[in-house]
Amino acid sequence: MSAWEENVRRVVPYVPGEQPKNKGIIKLNTNENPYPPSPLVESSLHDLENKSLRLYPDPTSEDLVKAIGDSHGLRPEQVFVGVGSDDVLAMAFLTFFSNGNSSNNGHESKGNNSGTNIAGGHESKNQFPLLFPDITYSFYSVWADLFRIPYATPPLDTDFRIQPRDYCNSSHKGNIRGIVLANPNAPTGLALELSAIRSMVQDNPDVVVIIDEAYIDFGGETAIPLLAKYDNLLVTRTFSKSRSLAGMRIGYALGQPKLIAYLNDVKYSFNSYTMSKAALICGVASLQDKTYFEDSLQKIKNLREWTKKELKKLGFVFGDSAANFIFANHPKLPAKDLFLALKEDKIYVRYFDKPRIDNYLRITIGTEEEMRSLISALRKHLKYNTYNSLKLDF
Amino acid sequence: MSAWEENVRRVVPYVPGEQPKNKGIIKLNTNENPYPPSPLVESSLHDLENKSLRLYPDPTSEDLVKAIGDSHGLRPEQVFVGVGSDDVLAMAFLTFFSNGNSSNNGHESKGNNSGTNIAGGHESKNQFPLLFPDITYSFYSVWADLFRIPYATPPLDTDFRIQPRDYCNSSHKGNIRGIVLANPNAPTGLALELSAIRSMVQDNPDVVVIIDEAYIDFGGETAIPLLAKYDNLLVTRTFSKSRSLAGMRIGYALGQPKLIAYLNDVKYSFNSYTMSKAALICGVASLQDKTYFEDSLQKIKNLREWTKKELKKLGFVFGDSAANFIFANHPKLPAKDLFLALKEDKIYVRYFDKPRIDNYLRITIGTEEEMRSLISALRKHLKYNTYNSLKLDF
Repeated sequence: MSAWEENVRRVVPYVPGEQPKNKGIIKLNTNENPYPPSPLVESSLHDLENKSLRLYPDPTSEDLVKAIGDSHGLRPEQVFVGVGSDDVLAMAFLTFFSNGNSSNNGHESKGNNSGTNIAGGHESKNQFPLLFPDITYSFYSVWADLFRIPYATPPLDTDFRIQPRDYCNSSHKGNIRGIVLANPNAPTGLALELSAIRSMVQDNPDVVVIIDEAYIDFGGETAIPLLAKYDNLLVTRTFSKSRSLAGMRIGYALGQPKLIAYLNDVKYSFNSYTMSKAALICGVASLQDKTYFEDSLQKIKNLREWTKKELKKLGFVFGDSAANFIFANHPKLPAKDLFLALKEDKIYVRYFDKPRIDNYLRITIGTEEEMRSLISALRKHLKYNTYNSLKLDF
Repeated sequence: MSAWEENVRRVVPYVPGEQPKNKGIIKLNTNENPYPPSPLVESSLHDLENKSLRLYPDPTSEDLVKAIGDSHGLRPEQVFVGVGSDDVLAMAFLTFFSNGNSSNNGHESKGNNSGTNIAGGHESKNQFPLLFPDITYSFYSVWADLFRIPYATPPLDTDFRIQPRDYCNSSHKGNIRGIVLANPNAPTGLALELSAIRSMVQDNPDVVVIIDEAYIDFGGETAIPLLAKYDNLLVTRTFSKSRSLAGMRIGYALGQPKLIAYLNDVKYSFNSYTMSKAALICGVASLQDKTYFEDSLQKIKNLREWTKKELKKLGFVFGDSAANFIFANHPKLPAKDLFLALKEDKIYVRYFDKPRIDNYLRITIGTEEEMRSLISALRKHLKYNTYNSLKLDF
């Protein structure tokens, strides 16, 4: 080992879902939208002139920021944009949760990943943990580790529901550095009522509360109306799911101007020009086509409900997903076996080899044809395995 | 002030050169290429299908990484890509220089910005400074402040040349955490000999040395041949200048596989998908058109030499720039006045209101027509001011 390696920031990176390069795959593993973005996106991209590419993009992303603000009835000063919501969340973790965190002198921080065992009064403020559920978007703990942010992970209940009381001041006695919740939560798909979110934001005025609304367009109640009243709330969104633009990398955050200004200061200290000219024009074009957007959302929601019914018929068990995916378990068949069997059928779903969720599949809602193929494949595997287990049992 | 603000990471962001929105401006302020990218870039962008945008891009950027590697005779494992070289450098500062830096408990770190006053043996390793020149790309100190990295800034000599001995082990006694040098340096345009760079890299095997080659295609000797021998060297590059792709945001770093792997771990802990599909295909297309690239480089280099002659005739003083800009001073006229006068003529150049360089203009090489307009405008201002000062003096 070379001496310089001692000073490297060692991390265990997030592992994204597989992006297979071969064709003919039914890809239900990364919650992408089965429909293309609005045709306006394509024409805007084709109008982008070669000669314009030699110049830097607008560092303030003014047009896109304004279009996003307008779509939510907010002012441009309330909008922050980034390279997908992962970029936005990474910047937010760095800005709001990593200041004054304890030095680790070259050792890896493992975070305070200890369920509800929240720091007591004897610990210094630097050890106060960031809170997020034990089962949620797995990038949260990766960002926390990257920026050496201590964290605690209150467990979801047995139905995978967030327990709002875990995030209330009386539970943690104010000894926290922030809260991050995905709503609807991933990979569970379950939405939290707005009243519960309001209580958390109101109850923790001394820390920033981030509500990650990557999937909110598919269901659940947005926290955006709370922004008018609470200056410690940040709502994040992405163009990757509901707007079919995963390939262009566009995400954003909404908050009161002061919060957004702090985020922009850090962003301008990291990279002046995060948004390419292509991303800027595609984002604006997508927002212009409201009808197309609403129509494709409705198709996905209808198909989600159809898929729920079909999965139920096959004996799957799952919560009432508000997102564009279903997190399902089958009482008779290990999820890992099903995951591998589906992969052989060229149907990719997501499997997480992690405590509590290692017997679940996260299935993205695709096109009608894709969902019919999935259901047929599942039916086939269930039949085969039931037959086999009957053979084995008797 | 709200209580949550106490925990915010406060920073003073980098201020990029102006990106004026009005037309008819001769833009010589941000070192962009006056020529469009290769026509292959435009056609690749127009071939990008709408339906492909719904899917995430390849997180490994395999095609682009391979094309970049091939262009330098390096393997894919030696290439890291990012959203412009600013993104690449930000990730490199975070990966190689910010581990185990001292906690600041909410106070702003001002860095050890004290010339050659390098930390002595009495200070702990956590205080060892990162080294870069006092006059260089001003983002270096911004990244250092963002990640709370102590730094020291050995001064350039009076001719704005880097003093290699400042970076040698005997000068700092090994008490440093790394070195970052732009070659050619910005905003001076001066190149450092490869032998000096080799000595620095060899002399400091315990720390990472970054050579920022944003402008190397316009002149100077690349450090890439050193990569075979030294595992502590990272060379960064950008598509924004020589490849006319500032608008698409593509940069990269080259190093030995171990160094690149550490960088990728941090990148995958920050954002899985930094490169949009548009950026990936434009980057590959640009690399395919070698003739176009060489031709436009040659045109810029010829025009740089012509501009030097013309500026000399007008009495300007400057070093021998190897980059696509000239950093010039006029003994009789304050740079700030000239900067403002040119701005009135709709000619934007860059002026830095900073110690030692506040009487210089950084002038990007534009098209022939643009450079002729610049020289005429400068001639006009010099005549007028000489006349005025004669009137005042006698």
